[in-house]
Amino acid sequence: MSFKLSDLNAISTASFVAVCDGFFEHSPWVAERVALFRPYGDRDALHRALCAAVDAASAEEKLGLIRSHPDLVGEAAQRGDLTSESAREQTAAGLAQVSPAETARFRELNAAYWARFGFPFVICARENKKDVILATLPIRLANAPEVELRIALDEIGKIAKLRLFDAIEEG
Amino acid sequence: MSFKLSDLNAISTASFVAVCDGFFEHSPWVAERVALFRPYGDRDALHRALCAAVDAASAEEKLGLIRSHPDLVGEAAQRGDLTSESAREQTAAGLAQVSPAETARFRELNAAYWARFGFPFVICARENKKDVILATLPIRLANAPEVELRIALDEIGKIAKLRLFDAIEEG
Repeated sequence: MSFKLSDLNAISTASFVAVCDGFFEHSPWVAERVALFRPYGDRDALHRALCAAVDAASAEEKLGLIRSHPDLVGEAAQRGDLTSESAREQTAAGLAQVSPAETARFRELNAAYWARFGFPFVICARENKKDVILATLPIRLANAPEVELRIALDEIGKIAKLRLFDAIEEG
Repeated sequence: MSFKLSDLNAISTASFVAVCDGFFEHSPWVAERVALFRPYGDRDALHRALCAAVDAASAEEKLGLIRSHPDLVGEAAQRGDLTSESAREQTAAGLAQVSPAETARFRELNAAYWARFGFPFVICARENKKDVILATLPIRLANAPEVELRIALDEIGKIAKLRLFDAIEEG
């Protein structure tokens, strides 16, 4: 069962933040900043408000949000130390089943990405499969830093939308 | 942030069940049966009601609840296919770091336990460490089936209490 939007519009800020907690990885401040603007008429309106809060955040906060994301096929994934959402998404993309060669390739590209941009490679794993992600990574690696920052935040918005639509139902 | 008990007392049944969803592994029916008896004065009262709903359930439902639990150090854990709660609890018990010999011992004991009782070995992993669990398993294996059924349900109650107290705050 999912949580109802009408309830989400009515509960305390603390409970609202608790329900929205997983939408933006390790970043409850996003939900905190939109609690006051309730009620939201539908899930899209809530999602737009959350993304607007990210857009309005400081450069440091945006960087912190991006850095809250785990590497794909990274050490946290290997340790089983992902949020439940990330674990499910990486599995859906086929990233739970990787060959040693693929793992080595991910590690190498992830390291190059971090070294170039100062934050991890973020992609909406549920909208992409392993092969596409592996093909995309070198292309993204060639982008300008300001372009990658924008893409990372857009991907985070897509991730949040899928998580929100899973957790919340209208009505 | 945690969800507030006062909000839990006020929201729709669907949202109440969504918040309580993870307390009893894959068994939303437990929360469904106590939603009507709100409001609860404190978290203990809610927990007692949930456990009473389990006690009042049919023998088939109780068996289904126990069977919803993953084996410790089992195949689901290895596949990364646990609920987030189970994954966290098994990790807290030190079960994410097991030697091949320990894994083999768990698999052997788990299989013997299933064969004898018809349900998996359930223990509140957050209250026990790997060595204690491995020492306890052969002892529990020697119990009478009706005793193990009672112990399994009691352990499920303890697991649910820790999950509930993590997710819900009074006030």
